Amino acid sequence: MSQGYNRVFNFSAGPGAIPVPVLEQARDEMLNWQGAGMSIMEMSHRGKAFIKVAEAAEADARTLMGIPDNYKILFLQGGASLQFTMIAQNFLRGGSADYITTGEWSKKGIAAAKLEGDPKAIYDAKESAYNHAPAYGDLAHNDGARYVHFTMNETIQGVDFAADPPADGRDWICDMSSNIASRPFDVSRYAMIYAGAQKNLGPSGVTLVILRDDMVERITPGLPPMLDYKTHVDNGWMYNTPPCWSVYIAGLVFRHWINFGGLAKVEEMNKAKAAHIYGVIDASGGFYKGHAVEANRSLMNIPFTLPTEELTTKFLEETKAEGYLELKGHRSVGGLRASVYNAFPEEGAKALADFMRGFAERNG
Amino acid sequence: MSQGYNRVFNFSAGPGAIPVPVLEQARDEMLNWQGAGMSIMEMSHRGKAFIKVAEAAEADARTLMGIPDNYKILFLQGGASLQFTMIAQNFLRGGSADYITTGEWSKKGIAAAKLEGDPKAIYDAKESAYNHAPAYGDLAHNDGARYVHFTMNETIQGVDFAADPPADGRDWICDMSSNIASRPFDVSRYAMIYAGAQKNLGPSGVTLVILRDDMVERITPGLPPMLDYKTHVDNGWMYNTPPCWSVYIAGLVFRHWINFGGLAKVEEMNKAKAAHIYGVIDASGGFYKGHAVEANRSLMNIPFTLPTEELTTKFLEETKAEGYLELKGHRSVGGLRASVYNAFPEEGAKALADFMRGFAERNG
Repeated sequence: MSQGYNRVFNFSAGPGAIPVPVLEQARDEMLNWQGAGMSIMEMSHRGKAFIKVAEAAEADARTLMGIPDNYKILFLQGGASLQFTMIAQNFLRGGSADYITTGEWSKKGIAAAKLEGDPKAIYDAKESAYNHAPAYGDLAHNDGARYVHFTMNETIQGVDFAADPPADGRDWICDMSSNIASRPFDVSRYAMIYAGAQKNLGPSGVTLVILRDDMVERITPGLPPMLDYKTHVDNGWMYNTPPCWSVYIAGLVFRHWINFGGLAKVEEMNKAKAAHIYGVIDASGGFYKGHAVEANRSLMNIPFTLPTEELTTKFLEETKAEGYLELKGHRSVGGLRASVYNAFPEEGAKALADFMRGFAERNG
Repeated sequence: MSQGYNRVFNFSAGPGAIPVPVLEQARDEMLNWQGAGMSIMEMSHRGKAFIKVAEAAEADARTLMGIPDNYKILFLQGGASLQFTMIAQNFLRGGSADYITTGEWSKKGIAAAKLEGDPKAIYDAKESAYNHAPAYGDLAHNDGARYVHFTMNETIQGVDFAADPPADGRDWICDMSSNIASRPFDVSRYAMIYAGAQKNLGPSGVTLVILRDDMVERITPGLPPMLDYKTHVDNGWMYNTPPCWSVYIAGLVFRHWINFGGLAKVEEMNKAKAAHIYGVIDASGGFYKGHAVEANRSLMNIPFTLPTEELTTKFLEETKAEGYLELKGHRSVGGLRASVYNAFPEEGAKALADFMRGFAERNG
């Protein structure tokens, strides 16, 4: 339990934790948002009050993540899964693109693109059970690839590229759903970044898209309006009613991390949190085994295994009794997974590490 | 002002009002949902707690709207605008369908379908400024139409078909966004019903789709997964992370109206609310003019005009000072519009009617 309110430590891979002060503000403003006489959920999205919320969310996203002026910010619906299709429909235009496969989510990305054109798998870490990401310099790109697509952090495998792509003139498009805003990153290295909000940015139901201006000129003409980035750019992401509540909460989350000190401070905190858990794994003499190679260890998702299925079950039962929830690993990797997104408190990571140390002593 | 909390009367065309007890419950459960130790927004959508919320929302939707067992219930993203495209992509299959145009939203529906196939406009009320809906019996259908598409209630024009389509063996697909659950309706008359939630069902960011089982067998193969109804049916609308918060609130709204007494009681309330306002219009000797013909008057959206632009401006200023907000009409119809969705309180409709009577006396 932590942070008052009898809250548990929620290690869910997503949706993940939201900062407590954000939840408190949302609670306090529920019946009457800042004197408007109604909830955020009840407002016309074209009225002055919500436009203020929307503009603040955009401005704070720009400040927090250092998004340059030549990039549009869009708050869309449908999650990363709809982006997989939209990216290919908007930008393949009957040509090809390079896709890097480092785990479950990048697999889904290329599968959706195959329905729209001719994406090339230039790297697939399948042979090593998706336990690493390639070095950017080792990739063999195809001539004429319209973009390069990759997943910065694989939520299920806990594999992180750990750095931005090079400034090599290629159009890098990145699914950053599970580690966006977890550390400073250089937006100018990307043609497009997208992220479902429900891990580091707020609630599910909204997807952040950061799109470089010149990409808009390359969009396939004649797309269905809701699948065309140009529709959303031209209408300031209000072609139809946006997911107002989710945008509101995301805005409060951006502001929370700006007030915290920005992404350099967030990274420091995330490194400290992850170090508690990786430290126990590394000192356990093989009792705990991490999935990812050290250079690509995710700060957000830490999948690890125990020596036997019996111990895994026992671990889950005992942690559940402590109020440490959602530690079961994804079926494709097995074992356990601790997800420690931005809003997950350090005391929770420390508590789990302490528990892991004791569990290994009792059962090792 | 009404209902405590210094709330205003919110005549917005959408998003619209949400029942106060629903907002109170959402507020009270914000930091810790029913002892789970976390907010609804922070839960894994595949965990027991959220699955309980999701199942209750589905079951209560079924109860409230009398949805038969041979219809699937889906909670999707993207609003009615994405449904326009999905319907055509899933069901046209290179063929044709009949489209009825009674206002702004049905215009958008057929425009999106034209990108996917050959929809036929079998009725367009353009010549009469979209002030009515056709009688079902007067429509000339095309042989081989794969479905018939219409918009039950036009939000902007305030035009309502006022009855379900006939049981004529045709596959009626209905955009019910702005009047779903405002009165009893017979789901078995439809092949599919869809509705953005933000008018009568809850917050924006979730779209209710009610789909007859046999329609699933007719879906075009090879569609992008997120645009394929079969994906969502096969995965219980959790192919990817759903808009959890919006589904939660919608579930509370369904339960609220069940406890209120069901849709027959809701209709009675809505008729009383609308009668206050239409009554003043009809008794004003032409000072107020309603847009829709009497037989197709919407119970949800009441657009009306005043004799001059000056009086319209004055009306808006004076009502705003009273805390009666969002009464400006849509630019395509002009004048004023009072939207009085399910959760809009009767005292607000009565207060506006009283104001309108006095305003006409002072300025007529």
